Amino acid sequence: MTVHSARLEALRATLADRQLDGFVVPLTDEHMSEYVGDYAQRLAWLTGFQGSAGTAVVLADRAAIFTDGRYTLQVREQVSADDWDYVDVPATSIADWLAVNAASGARIGYDPWLHTRSWVDQAGAVLADRAVALVAVAANPVDAIWTDRPAPSPARLTVQPDAVAGASSATKRAQIADWLTEKNADAVVLSALDSIAWVLNTRGGDVDHTPVALSYAIVHADGETDLFVAPEKVDDTVRQHLGNSVRLRDRAGFADALAGFAGRRVAVDPAGSVAAIADALEAGGATTLPLRDPVLLPKAIKNAVEIAGHRAASRRDGAALTRFLHWVATECPKGGQTELSAAAKLLEFRQETGLLLDTSFDTISATGGHGASPHYRVTPESNAPIELGQLYLVDSGGQYADGTTDVTRVLPIGEPTAEMRDRFTRVLKGHIAIATAIFPDGTMGGQIDAFARRPLWEAGLDFGHGTGHGVGAYLSVHEGPQRIAPPDHPSGQALEPLRAGMLLSNEPGYYKAGEYGIRIENLLLVVPHAVAGGDPERAMLAFETLTFAPIERNLIDPALLTADELLWLDAYHAKVAEIIGPLLADGEVREWLATKCAPLG
Amino acid sequence: MTVHSARLEALRATLADRQLDGFVVPLTDEHMSEYVGDYAQRLAWLTGFQGSAGTAVVLADRAAIFTDGRYTLQVREQVSADDWDYVDVPATSIADWLAVNAASGARIGYDPWLHTRSWVDQAGAVLADRAVALVAVAANPVDAIWTDRPAPSPARLTVQPDAVAGASSATKRAQIADWLTEKNADAVVLSALDSIAWVLNTRGGDVDHTPVALSYAIVHADGETDLFVAPEKVDDTVRQHLGNSVRLRDRAGFADALAGFAGRRVAVDPAGSVAAIADALEAGGATTLPLRDPVLLPKAIKNAVEIAGHRAASRRDGAALTRFLHWVATECPKGGQTELSAAAKLLEFRQETGLLLDTSFDTISATGGHGASPHYRVTPESNAPIELGQLYLVDSGGQYADGTTDVTRVLPIGEPTAEMRDRFTRVLKGHIAIATAIFPDGTMGGQIDAFARRPLWEAGLDFGHGTGHGVGAYLSVHEGPQRIAPPDHPSGQALEPLRAGMLLSNEPGYYKAGEYGIRIENLLLVVPHAVAGGDPERAMLAFETLTFAPIERNLIDPALLTADELLWLDAYHAKVAEIIGPLLADGEVREWLATKCAPLG
Repeated sequence: MTVHSARLEALRATLADRQLDGFVVPLTDEHMSEYVGDYAQRLAWLTGFQGSAGTAVVLADRAAIFTDGRYTLQVREQVSADDWDYVDVPATSIADWLAVNAASGARIGYDPWLHTRSWVDQAGAVLADRAVALVAVAANPVDAIWTDRPAPSPARLTVQPDAVAGASSATKRAQIADWLTEKNADAVVLSALDSIAWVLNTRGGDVDHTPVALSYAIVHADGETDLFVAPEKVDDTVRQHLGNSVRLRDRAGFADALAGFAGRRVAVDPAGSVAAIADALEAGGATTLPLRDPVLLPKAIKNAVEIAGHRAASRRDGAALTRFLHWVATECPKGGQTELSAAAKLLEFRQETGLLLDTSFDTISATGGHGASPHYRVTPESNAPIELGQLYLVDSGGQYADGTTDVTRVLPIGEPTAEMRDRFTRVLKGHIAIATAIFPDGTMGGQIDAFARRPLWEAGLDFGHGTGHGVGAYLSVHEGPQRIAPPDHPSGQALEPLRAGMLLSNEPGYYKAGEYGIRIENLLLVVPHAVAGGDPERAMLAFETLTFAPIERNLIDPALLTADELLWLDAYHAKVAEIIGPLLADGEVREWLATKCAPLG
Repeated sequence: MTVHSARLEALRATLADRQLDGFVVPLTDEHMSEYVGDYAQRLAWLTGFQGSAGTAVVLADRAAIFTDGRYTLQVREQVSADDWDYVDVPATSIADWLAVNAASGARIGYDPWLHTRSWVDQAGAVLADRAVALVAVAANPVDAIWTDRPAPSPARLTVQPDAVAGASSATKRAQIADWLTEKNADAVVLSALDSIAWVLNTRGGDVDHTPVALSYAIVHADGETDLFVAPEKVDDTVRQHLGNSVRLRDRAGFADALAGFAGRRVAVDPAGSVAAIADALEAGGATTLPLRDPVLLPKAIKNAVEIAGHRAASRRDGAALTRFLHWVATECPKGGQTELSAAAKLLEFRQETGLLLDTSFDTISATGGHGASPHYRVTPESNAPIELGQLYLVDSGGQYADGTTDVTRVLPIGEPTAEMRDRFTRVLKGHIAIATAIFPDGTMGGQIDAFARRPLWEAGLDFGHGTGHGVGAYLSVHEGPQRIAPPDHPSGQALEPLRAGMLLSNEPGYYKAGEYGIRIENLLLVVPHAVAGGDPERAMLAFETLTFAPIERNLIDPALLTADELLWLDAYHAKVAEIIGPLLADGEVREWLATKCAPLG
């Protein structure tokens, strides 16, 4: 019996003890974080699955693991078909599967600290028709058998200085207090870790690549705030920074504190907070108001200081990336390099800036067919040599105190084929169509996503992910509430109006299974855009590209570009040379960049 | 006291008698029709409002009329500010307004035969928080005081022959029966008049411009169907056509019949059927299944016979329109013509086809500033002379047994200004961007809508309506479930996947308040589109333009068109000349068309 089979059997025994007919094991934490700490990796521990999104459902006689299209192959490699059914979401939801596979009258457990109330309500509605009950458990049965579960990270909080944040925490809390007054609410519970970090101008080290601390906050209508965090994480500097209006309380006491709001109106985000929070508030006699986290929008709309910080971080990062691209172009055709050695080299260049605090995510260093998996993660097992005839794709970013970067470039190792050049040029056309878009204030990302696809559609091609996501300011590299994606994106973010100050990625791609992947990614700032002669009452917006690094000219077929597209490309490369050139100490790299940025038109 | 003030007072007295604190008066009928018969024009009778969408709410001390942006001016002209507040939807919903203006504990009546259950549920949820109750009335209090209310139309049903419908009613009912089996349902209630007409291959004359009959249908799992219709509407020919599997029952007995489904599972469309239907089913002991009307999709996806019929109707109609455009170009610059005389002339040309059964909607014949109201309706009071220097816009369509048409053209009377040519050319570029789009099967209209706007956005301009709507086959000129519009269109139709066989309008525009309106509208058929070299597993779609009539060359600035756009335009005009030319008996008109269709490129 394998280790994972044994764990599944142990969980089934525990469920039987607790009179449960089944249990749902999501890959989330108490904060609905995108990336979760080791202590919350219950899905990987139970099943062996190493992807970043998925859910398991265990019944007495059957178990299933639910993953999306990104992990169709990976889940079959990592999770045993002897024990598990593979189910594709969103085609079949967990509730759909339970409706078919759970017996009528079954009691299916879930941990209310790991699911949103929206999920519980929706799944519950589907299952009610089949007389299957969802039952909130008081303690997670996986934790009962996971005896060597890691402790939460002990990392300490740090201060994000007002001079970098661009607004004091007191100002931000006053804005939330105004919002509470407007909503006739007494308090709001913040459980998204980046929302808390943004409001308090603090950062942390509890989650890989995202500088946040495990904590909860409750902001009251007078702006006074309770911060629930492990006491040993807070030193005197942070304590002094937070001041008297922020009361430090132990994170372990959070659940009990929620019982203390009898008769008061408390806002909780139904889609971004776990169900247990609203449950505990209501059990204590509070009225909960299902309102969106009030931090999402002000956090997404960067202030002038955050924008200036991002510009600085982006140029610094662009210079490191340019050094790396030169290295790839020079060294990789000689042979002997691998995906891992290249990723290490890129990290080295970024570290040499002296300001890198972390990468923004696990670097995607993918050669040949690996590039066709948009979320490929290189491991010692998967590591492949970078060889002539391949396309090498690198999607990476840095966390700096003044900004979070995210950029993708593709280089041919040797001569690319005509097909590669055709596909790359179409992806570039889509990238330019987004970069040059002008649109009315409030246009949704879902309205413009297809601008990036049209040149591929015309060739009978497409790509299977969204075109762009929001980006934090020394916070999460994936940040809501906005997104450029088809309008039915499950997050709902493609229907969020775009506003001046928002930061987004622009990353169309093309993937040929088993052969190569292409993606061209820059970050964009939404800016006001006056058009002479336009309707005077119609405020217009445009994008300003903030990322500077050469886009490989050997992959471009200029005959496929319109005159306007060529103008854009040449102007972009002129700016890359002007901005990045002076940041390069090595004359050879500077000269290489100049040739890479010469006009194509 | 005006007649409308007196009616409002009478309604308030009736409400008081019935212990109601308020009442909601929508502009709908028992079928949630887009256009409603005179007998259901309660809103106009009560308030004087003549627009095609709106709702009134009457409280004891206050009353409000809710209209959207199209009617901001019109409602102020037609409805007295002494009696009514003007409220803009969707900014303020009826529930929002009631939450502020109705007293806590108030009982607000609504007629459950005029509101969907979705509306009742959503408004009820908003009002529950304020302790305001929505109360279904057994009889509409407006009807109690509207003593000279018109009787429903007595028009008879007609048969839509199988040879024109392309599928027999028996086949269509068998498809619904299969769907019922799949959904584990015993029956489905159809209340949308065009769904019933499509399933039974019948047409009617009870609603202006839409050839449908006031009726309900219940299709059972064995395909047997109850048709509830006034007996005097059905003659022997129709009776024979319907056959033994369609049981004729009096429409007056429909509500009672719903009580006879105890213990059975009955599908009802929650967004397309009035609340009273589900209420009556449940009161009788049935389980209702809130499922979308199963007719919507097969009705939208035209079969080969319907497509061939539309082609024939479209050519016939295009020839009539071309004769009219020639007439406008020749006669209007001489002076003496008006919006009404022009509309009458167009009707004359359509009638001369010998096959016109009705117009598809009230012809929009709008000159100068009137064109800037996208839904302008000419009346003897508004009728304006067509004068030199104006743009004349005509949006019209015909109902033929083989198809429903909808087309918009704009002509300059004399010389257009450079600005008019710039705007017209941008609208044309948007029209071509839609007409030439290639996209994956299942792409939503909301994804491609912005293709039509980009050339306007680049000039700081836009238009305030969707780009296209579905069109029926000798049925409603506005038909769901698909739509090309921004993805947040309240109908939800912009999120419907496009499928081969759907028919849509392509009608971007530009409106300069007080000066002119521009709209270029053709109908499109969604067709499969193979792309050589594309991903083999990715099925692609494209549009085929079905409407043929010249697009005014004097309004086009060729310098603003790309080479590809010019190619499209010249190819389109070549086809117009080829298809319409031979249908024109008058040599002068034929020659005129040839010059209008000569290449611009």
